Amino acid sequence: MTKPTTAKPKTKRGQERRAKILAAAEQVIGQKGFAAASIADITRAAETALGTFYIYFSGKDEVFRELVQDMGHATRSQAAERVAGAANRLEAERAGLEAYLTVVRDRPLQYRIVEEARFVDPEAYREYYTEFGKAYADQLDQAAGNGEISPGDAEVRAWALMGIAKTLGERFVLWEDEADIERVVAEAHKFICNGLAP
Amino acid sequence: MTKPTTAKPKTKRGQERRAKILAAAEQVIGQKGFAAASIADITRAAETALGTFYIYFSGKDEVFRELVQDMGHATRSQAAERVAGAANRLEAERAGLEAYLTVVRDRPLQYRIVEEARFVDPEAYREYYTEFGKAYADQLDQAAGNGEISPGDAEVRAWALMGIAKTLGERFVLWEDEADIERVVAEAHKFICNGLAP
Repeated sequence: MTKPTTAKPKTKRGQERRAKILAAAEQVIGQKGFAAASIADITRAAETALGTFYIYFSGKDEVFRELVQDMGHATRSQAAERVAGAANRLEAERAGLEAYLTVVRDRPLQYRIVEEARFVDPEAYREYYTEFGKAYADQLDQAAGNGEISPGDAEVRAWALMGIAKTLGERFVLWEDEADIERVVAEAHKFICNGLAP
Repeated sequence: MTKPTTAKPKTKRGQERRAKILAAAEQVIGQKGFAAASIADITRAAETALGTFYIYFSGKDEVFRELVQDMGHATRSQAAERVAGAANRLEAERAGLEAYLTVVRDRPLQYRIVEEARFVDPEAYREYYTEFGKAYADQLDQAAGNGEISPGDAEVRAWALMGIAKTLGERFVLWEDEADIERVVAEAHKFICNGLAP
């Protein structure tokens, strides 16, 4: 997965076309899986010519990696937005979990793509969670310093909390037709609060 | 994935041959992934003829599903063994987590196979975690009834706890050359105890 990445388009029309291909790739790869999804499937879904794909992307690998990174950005920015108003770390945990489950509900195919990255592009997968884990651990360390949560190994805690979010997202959002995010967040948050309380 | 399953061999020699093919399949599929692993690769690793494979298995799908189920049995029996001596639910949580991380350390390829099942055999994947989740929730319900843990939604808690175990297993066992299971269990257990304490 070290193919050169193509330059991003400069014109508005080019940017729109590229975005359309990316959105189509999310649908096609998310539904069929990476191996079964062909570039022809993607351009057909994007209603564009096969050759157009290669103006914007070097291949399926590049599209895939960008989709994984997109999910990271979407999750982080949604979480940051919701967490911004939180009075303390325990409130932030609630807001962050709710934001994450909402992203999973709204972009189920991207959740699947990130998980498939473990096999398709292990480096991108590891990067995705490692970045997340670092930022999370930093916030926990800071909160422990402020007395908002009890002291403890921030790295282990960050990964435990990511594990909770990931698994609840799969079981209670992806696997349900009508996800009851509020109920899941309320219950998980009680557990998390007690787990972290000072 | 509804191919007929072949009958299990009755002779000792047949059982040994079948087990050898299964062990080879765990190595080959765990390392290469399901799609890239061929039956020829598996029989070569098992030092047996290609045709012998089909005496015991209808195809790669059947072997794969059996490997997923094996991981379930191994994890459950290891956990049950370690949990048996626990005085109460909170101690059992510690023992269960330690047992799970030990299985991941000892059978990393099977961990990968279970996770790949999400894409290769979604039904087997879902069954794997659903069975686990149900048994776990029952135990939590019982413990809440006994006053060993606080009352709460056992299903959400069970999945949160499975998420913790799964993610810690990936980050601190699979991704590390020398996993420090004791440290991870100690820290996670503090968090879990506080989260569940009555």
